Amino acid sequence: MTGLEDDLAAAVEAPGTPDGAAGVRRARAWLTRAAEPGSVALWRYVEDVGPAAAVRALRDGTAPAALRALVGARAEQDASLADLRRAERCGARLVVPEDEEWPAFALHPLTVAAHAGGGDGGDDGGGDLDRTKALVPPMALWVRGEAPLDAAVDRSVAVVGSRASTSYGEHVAAEFGAQLGERGWTVVSGGAYGIDVAAHRGALAAGAPTVAVLACGVDRAYPAAHSAVFARIVDGGGLLVSEWPPGAAPHRHRFLVRNRLIAGLTRGTVVVEAAARSGAQATARRAQALGKRVLVVPGPVTSALSVGCHELLRDAESGARLVSSAAQVIEEVGDLGSDLAAPPGRPASPRDGLSDLARRVLDACPVRAGVSAERLAAVAGCGPLEAMRVLPGLEISGLVEWTGTGWRLAPPPERARRR
Amino acid sequence: MTGLEDDLAAAVEAPGTPDGAAGVRRARAWLTRAAEPGSVALWRYVEDVGPAAAVRALRDGTAPAALRALVGARAEQDASLADLRRAERCGARLVVPEDEEWPAFALHPLTVAAHAGGGDGGDDGGGDLDRTKALVPPMALWVRGEAPLDAAVDRSVAVVGSRASTSYGEHVAAEFGAQLGERGWTVVSGGAYGIDVAAHRGALAAGAPTVAVLACGVDRAYPAAHSAVFARIVDGGGLLVSEWPPGAAPHRHRFLVRNRLIAGLTRGTVVVEAAARSGAQATARRAQALGKRVLVVPGPVTSALSVGCHELLRDAESGARLVSSAAQVIEEVGDLGSDLAAPPGRPASPRDGLSDLARRVLDACPVRAGVSAERLAAVAGCGPLEAMRVLPGLEISGLVEWTGTGWRLAPPPERARRR
Repeated sequence: MTGLEDDLAAAVEAPGTPDGAAGVRRARAWLTRAAEPGSVALWRYVEDVGPAAAVRALRDGTAPAALRALVGARAEQDASLADLRRAERCGARLVVPEDEEWPAFALHPLTVAAHAGGGDGGDDGGGDLDRTKALVPPMALWVRGEAPLDAAVDRSVAVVGSRASTSYGEHVAAEFGAQLGERGWTVVSGGAYGIDVAAHRGALAAGAPTVAVLACGVDRAYPAAHSAVFARIVDGGGLLVSEWPPGAAPHRHRFLVRNRLIAGLTRGTVVVEAAARSGAQATARRAQALGKRVLVVPGPVTSALSVGCHELLRDAESGARLVSSAAQVIEEVGDLGSDLAAPPGRPASPRDGLSDLARRVLDACPVRAGVSAERLAAVAGCGPLEAMRVLPGLEISGLVEWTGTGWRLAPPPERARRR
Repeated sequence: MTGLEDDLAAAVEAPGTPDGAAGVRRARAWLTRAAEPGSVALWRYVEDVGPAAAVRALRDGTAPAALRALVGARAEQDASLADLRRAERCGARLVVPEDEEWPAFALHPLTVAAHAGGGDGGDDGGGDLDRTKALVPPMALWVRGEAPLDAAVDRSVAVVGSRASTSYGEHVAAEFGAQLGERGWTVVSGGAYGIDVAAHRGALAAGAPTVAVLACGVDRAYPAAHSAVFARIVDGGGLLVSEWPPGAAPHRHRFLVRNRLIAGLTRGTVVVEAAARSGAQATARRAQALGKRVLVVPGPVTSALSVGCHELLRDAESGARLVSSAAQVIEEVGDLGSDLAAPPGRPASPRDGLSDLARRVLDACPVRAGVSAERLAAVAGCGPLEAMRVLPGLEISGLVEWTGTGWRLAPPPERARRR
């Protein structure tokens, strides 16, 4: 790796080569620093033209004006190589959608939502969208820790709640964290004070891996008091994950953007303690919008920190279900076939008539880089022969395509027409 | 009042006279001692032939064998006059369905359920029915206290829960009792240890009337430790109510039969603390079967006394709604138009097309003795002119009838044919 322009050229001109892959990674590294995550328009543009061409266009001024406005003066800067090296020094890496370990299965509802949301995509800008509410996959993820990202979040549950928790809430979060960990489930949380860290600690106490999704660089400990916990997470086979590059500061609005990822990476979100109008409630509503399970632990009605939980449970539209034990959580998220229900309001599609097996294999298909049937089978939880049996049917239905080297999702009809 | 046979004869031969009314009251007094409550077959028989004729037939052996089996050797005994006098001595009275103060409005769903349940009624016996689960109105109610029974339970809510409550549950029950009382709602409960008495005490502390529905005679204090509370209930404008005559002992099965009445007299049941498989859960399910609101207060998931509450909230079929304050309870039960929803599975009927006002007036109509339009209006919560405006339409639809002295519900079509 040397000059950014050379690497971008390699990505555009020699895709599929090691140099091309390195260029794609560098382009996505550049994007994570150049633009705040959460823009559906930018994500669609990168999907349409590819990351390297997108970076080129943003830098030379040929990208749509609304997208250039998102990047602003950062278009002229380039810290991508420094960021990748800085990550390497702290045991981190950049995981991109083109990687095998990209959690395409978990992020599928976010991908669907980003395709479905807004107008015709691409040219409609998006600078005026509320990024804190946008349902859009990350451009890439900075990941610190040994475990492959997709394996870590495959059977995962978010446990979230108030920072100003009570000893009751911390006890419950730690207990849920430990019991989920003991039963082979990864606890995902935000690494914050209160419920978050209690859940992480519970998983660590059970010797189970846990994932902290941060709103700052994975080389930073925020809050500083949790630096030892973060180190134990990495040492214990868990991961620190962030959409922001190394060194990025934990700005307030980043927590809101980050919350969608906690909901998006997991099969369900458990809210342990939440005050009225809290971030945990927002995460729960995000989970529901993605068709993921929303599970809520009640508490004493005399506690202000139960108000948000009880509000969710009283609101029939939240889809929230009361849980009082980790076993009840697993009962809700354990059914692979039904926990990726289509987001509400999605029209009837060829998917609807699929067998459970075919749907699982389809959900396992990545958006961009094709992968082998063996890999699909591993993600879908079936044998390779079973996966190979349903793939031809999925291809005939126009749902998947063969890239020459692997299987991936076929683009939606409207995008295919535009190409 | 002298001999039972003379009084029964007066009831049969001179209905509408003071002697006839006294005979009816004595017949129902006899029935409360002769047969344990909860038999749909016996209730229907009394409805069909009238209370005095029913008592005669049970005593002279001409009643259906299955009904005679319910009464057994008690057919030959008669303590009705003694019971009425004993009641009088302790400031109690027998309230019968023929009385103005009979809570026909509140008990309407129990009446509907008793008409709907089982086969063709009357001759099918019923000795093998599970009386603890039967949804059937009481034959009569022994009532101790000054307030008219119907007025006392018109705007009432049951607050029930575990006897082995925690201080959390007692605090919540007392707080709900006080706040409901302050806002003009009567708290109905069972007078037992724990949640029951905490709810009664909360209402008393707010200077509000409260009603204890007992599983023993209203002249007995059970538990004995609550004799002072029961005295304060009576002195504070509240009531002690029982289906059993004075002196009756609090046998275990009577509590289960009694629980349907707590659900049946009120607009909704609030469960505060309940262990798994508890009586409070049973009361809640009874309330739901009657189309009344089921409201559940959650608690810490670490408490065994929250298990029953959380089970109700997790069971979608229970119809239970989470409440965390008395205000939320009132929100649920305060809507007069919708809180008497038809029991599930009831077929479409002329009722369905009625206006809200017409339905309220209909629900206010008693089953037996006709009452004035003014009285209907008072129960239905509308003006007398409004009531008079909808009554002709209800009569044309065959839903109400004019007895010559007042309005009452018309008998259901199948019973009308049989007559």
